[in-house]
Amino acid sequence: MTDSSDRFADKSVAPSRRKFLNTAAVAGLAGVGLAACNDKSAPAAGAAAPASAAAVAHGSAGGVHPKPGELDTYYGLWSGGHTGDMRVLGMPSGRELTRIPCFVPDALVGWGITNESKAIMGTKPDGSLKYTVADTHHTHASYKDGDYDGRYAWINDKINSRIARIRLDYFTCDKITELPNVQGFHGIFPDKRDPVDPAINYTTRVFCGAEFHIPLPNNGSDLDKPEAYRSMFSCVDAETMEVRWQVLIDGNCDLAATSYDGKLAATNQYNTEGGVKFADMMSVERDACLFFNVARIEQAVKDGKFKTYGASKVPVVDGTLKSNADPKTALTAYVSVPKNPHGVNASPDGKYFICAGKLSPTATVIELARVLDWFDGKLDKLDAAIVAEVEIGLGPLHTAFDGRGNAYTTLFLDSQLVKWNVDAAIKFHAGDKTAKYVVDRLDLQFQPGHVNASQSETKNADGKWLAVGCKFSKDRFLPVGPLHPENEQIIDISGDKMVLAADHPVRGEPHDFIIFKRELLRPKQVYELDDFPNAIKDAKDGGVFRNGKKVEVKMTSQAPMFSLTEFKLKKGDVVTLTLTNLDKIEDLTHGFAIPKYNVNFIVNPQETKSVTFVADQPGVFWCYCTHFCHALHLEMRSRMIVEA
Amino acid sequence: MTDSSDRFADKSVAPSRRKFLNTAAVAGLAGVGLAACNDKSAPAAGAAAPASAAAVAHGSAGGVHPKPGELDTYYGLWSGGHTGDMRVLGMPSGRELTRIPCFVPDALVGWGITNESKAIMGTKPDGSLKYTVADTHHTHASYKDGDYDGRYAWINDKINSRIARIRLDYFTCDKITELPNVQGFHGIFPDKRDPVDPAINYTTRVFCGAEFHIPLPNNGSDLDKPEAYRSMFSCVDAETMEVRWQVLIDGNCDLAATSYDGKLAATNQYNTEGGVKFADMMSVERDACLFFNVARIEQAVKDGKFKTYGASKVPVVDGTLKSNADPKTALTAYVSVPKNPHGVNASPDGKYFICAGKLSPTATVIELARVLDWFDGKLDKLDAAIVAEVEIGLGPLHTAFDGRGNAYTTLFLDSQLVKWNVDAAIKFHAGDKTAKYVVDRLDLQFQPGHVNASQSETKNADGKWLAVGCKFSKDRFLPVGPLHPENEQIIDISGDKMVLAADHPVRGEPHDFIIFKRELLRPKQVYELDDFPNAIKDAKDGGVFRNGKKVEVKMTSQAPMFSLTEFKLKKGDVVTLTLTNLDKIEDLTHGFAIPKYNVNFIVNPQETKSVTFVADQPGVFWCYCTHFCHALHLEMRSRMIVEA
Repeated sequence: MTDSSDRFADKSVAPSRRKFLNTAAVAGLAGVGLAACNDKSAPAAGAAAPASAAAVAHGSAGGVHPKPGELDTYYGLWSGGHTGDMRVLGMPSGRELTRIPCFVPDALVGWGITNESKAIMGTKPDGSLKYTVADTHHTHASYKDGDYDGRYAWINDKINSRIARIRLDYFTCDKITELPNVQGFHGIFPDKRDPVDPAINYTTRVFCGAEFHIPLPNNGSDLDKPEAYRSMFSCVDAETMEVRWQVLIDGNCDLAATSYDGKLAATNQYNTEGGVKFADMMSVERDACLFFNVARIEQAVKDGKFKTYGASKVPVVDGTLKSNADPKTALTAYVSVPKNPHGVNASPDGKYFICAGKLSPTATVIELARVLDWFDGKLDKLDAAIVAEVEIGLGPLHTAFDGRGNAYTTLFLDSQLVKWNVDAAIKFHAGDKTAKYVVDRLDLQFQPGHVNASQSETKNADGKWLAVGCKFSKDRFLPVGPLHPENEQIIDISGDKMVLAADHPVRGEPHDFIIFKRELLRPKQVYELDDFPNAIKDAKDGGVFRNGKKVEVKMTSQAPMFSLTEFKLKKGDVVTLTLTNLDKIEDLTHGFAIPKYNVNFIVNPQETKSVTFVADQPGVFWCYCTHFCHALHLEMRSRMIVEA
Repeated sequence: MTDSSDRFADKSVAPSRRKFLNTAAVAGLAGVGLAACNDKSAPAAGAAAPASAAAVAHGSAGGVHPKPGELDTYYGLWSGGHTGDMRVLGMPSGRELTRIPCFVPDALVGWGITNESKAIMGTKPDGSLKYTVADTHHTHASYKDGDYDGRYAWINDKINSRIARIRLDYFTCDKITELPNVQGFHGIFPDKRDPVDPAINYTTRVFCGAEFHIPLPNNGSDLDKPEAYRSMFSCVDAETMEVRWQVLIDGNCDLAATSYDGKLAATNQYNTEGGVKFADMMSVERDACLFFNVARIEQAVKDGKFKTYGASKVPVVDGTLKSNADPKTALTAYVSVPKNPHGVNASPDGKYFICAGKLSPTATVIELARVLDWFDGKLDKLDAAIVAEVEIGLGPLHTAFDGRGNAYTTLFLDSQLVKWNVDAAIKFHAGDKTAKYVVDRLDLQFQPGHVNASQSETKNADGKWLAVGCKFSKDRFLPVGPLHPENEQIIDISGDKMVLAADHPVRGEPHDFIIFKRELLRPKQVYELDDFPNAIKDAKDGGVFRNGKKVEVKMTSQAPMFSLTEFKLKKGDVVTLTLTNLDKIEDLTHGFAIPKYNVNFIVNPQETKSVTFVADQPGVFWCYCTHFCHALHLEMRSRMIVEA
């Protein structure tokens, strides 16, 4: 890994490497530099792999690039990685339409500056933000009848174990919840219907996996007893955003998936060993896909069969292996999968969850009906729910679907996307060695992680466009210094052969994302004045209102003027400034900046926002509009006068 | 402006509107909603305007969209507006390659989190950041022999009057300076050579305009005497980033330009009235383009002919109109231009500065040789330096050049780009009414502001690609709620007719930008270990080093491991954690996050960074790599144990 000439070495590998990798081989991986060093010119690895499709084709299938003025046909919601936001893309163009600040301040919007956003983000006793960093990985949206319903999306923060909700009408974050008792909250998935009530055919819960084992409570006790560390799986209420319940488990959680019937949620587990050191985390040959029986867990909570930890009031049920040996009462079921799997994805026909092997070159297909059979005492061996476990290539991570029976799995080490047929894989696994389950392979640039396709995680997977997040772009774009962009590649999957349509550099580091038809959203372009209790509905209601040292400044904006051309304060005043944008025209946003006072925020049409600050610097401060609004935008100012 | 049906009203205007707009007409603008409401389907306005070129053409001139894996041929450096960063685009694709954090924290990089970045950004006595918002408008790069030399770029923060420097080898911000005595620092431009020393044929100064008049010093005195408020023009040293000198002026500064011979800098002025209220700022019919005689100013400073204000030690010379009436000793020259101009740009032949009228439908061409003549006492009337003042359309804002004698000016109110010939305009102005200076018009979507073309602001303007920042995108992209993206449009200007090649949605709100050939940069992809005095050059040198409550944690990273798999602290420790990335391979970046401690940052190959925090929460905290680096990236962790 330390010799840069390694980049150009031949990385073609012998077929034997396609067998399960043992710990020794894995340790070797680090040594020979396979992580970031797959040579794009190397031949497709392994005897079983057909030659890659021609990698370069431009504008196939009607074209990935809309003509100027043409609208995209799909939305993409992308997690923003350690920029802590959600990104909204037009697809298939891959153009970024907006970024929605969630966990991290945004100087444009004033996120983390306005009182309204600070209340959502959470503050310390001194009023400053509790957190200003985040690491988002997964974003998923609310369902109805097995498809997206355009209400909400959710996104995680792995660093601080927070979940944020996005309103998909206004494209804003409206709630953030910090999960108790866990660390390394990673996977996230909403349910698709209620496991018990058939009338609830839409999302009411969001499931959250946590990766890191910690002492419970994590208050300084049991520091040196890693064998006592535990992880949990959490259920958050989709509406209230409160944590409904948690499940104490063996092993950890990585990603999450939910069944279309609402009965099962699952998480893949890569460190069932509970190792706290690197090598310990990959000592066993099989880890697990851990299933949760949602109805039984909620009944257990109702029945009072739970504990709480520390200051948290959240009920925690026992989902450990030992306590759930009897299928008929079990809350959880640990289906084994080859070592250190990454990614669990639900097929759009509702039948299967598929785990990708990561350190095993395999995909494992688990039939959900059989898992339910096990819970019902009708299946002796839980692992009999595994209907296929087939070799697909090196370093499989995530899987998408086309609705025509094919799965598309990213191969991190092979830098490939493999298209394989699920039914054929099941036949092959059942003994039919003539079943050719690998349909196509496509070289990617480079080291792909997350993958998703249009409507892939719904019943209406349409098999048109696929996007893949490549973790390394290397020399794929003009050099911009040591920090490279990642490479999001867009692939046409409408035909038998996959065709690479476009490369898009993106700021590190998006993880998961979803792509869905534009018709599924009903965005609102102008706010409702009445939605803001502090709205100033008429410029006449504005002014400076003093109560001792507490001062309220109320103003409105209407291009190209603020209703107050000046306002006077005294040094030491505690000022709350409220601004309502009375402009009603779509796209007519104003900004409001106060020099030297670290204030900037925007007000969209009919929106109201407020900021609170201490007038601690005397002098003249020209508040000005920061968002171009009019030919006389530069002249749009209000003079703040702070008397010494 | 309040009736949304207004969007669909016919906005075609009578030719009479192409005359100079008086104050009454301007006030009317706000009323009839011209700002954001130009209908894209309206015919090109005015009798003088030829029909627009066909607005939609896809992939002309070899294509704006590179095939997957193809590199762009130009770099673009874009100011990020009120996101406070600089954006680096590949052109002509318009793809964003990276964002360089400057004035505002960045949770990905750890900008504002690491000790190194906080030292650049500036902190309060308590160690927190002095500012977390910014509003960047202008970015320009260092010159040599009249073209970019790939050393530096600069960018302004209008909210807090700061200037940041970007190293163009590593694409990072290395210095930030807060300008004293000014508010509303807006325009920025580096000089292109020294006015006196012919050996200095490269940038050594950066000029900074300030828009808002303030009392001097701005400490609470003269609050109610707006007639005493003043603005200044500042000169910053390109290497030390210290403010060399300032010039006290009449009126304000808006944008800036510099001559190719190094002798002149200029700023356009839109509020020579010194008005503090909206209507007052546009009461006179002509404002000014204000020229600075750089050599004379520096001689005056040497001669001690300056003052200082308040706590600032920066020498301030007197550039007011009254004190500079004698051309032979004048430091400044106020050339009149029609009311409230916006934008001053230097033609690539070195001969002219062009001011756009904004509230006048004109462009004013000022011949620099004549301005120098005036300083030399050879030109009686300074305004005789105006060699053309021609009508080009409504709301002209900024001008770019193709190196073939043509200028391209954005028309905010007409939502058009007008291509006009400078020599023909000069002939027309001189009396030849047969000179057809308007060459072409192109409808834009919508309300264009900044414009620039490939190499436009150098002697090597090549007339290939032009980009324009449209302030409103309206219905040009899929709706994403009330906050619309702006629309950056890319136009092929290689032929006689301008051809719209692509629309790109961008996060609000980029202002100025430059586009230049990729060969002009020499980026470095891997850092030098020795460039970091606190580098840990060998994992063996790492560990936990305690001195009372002060603890140093030193570690290295090498995929997929941190050198310390765990480290122990005691509650209350003041910890400085230093991380050196020993990986040498291009693109092999690691991240380092500490849950609940609000820490995340990245280390690029061979880079060292540090953070300081108080270990105030006991428990186990899994520090993990946030930047995908290896198949075993998820397992790359270090266990921080804080004893109660």
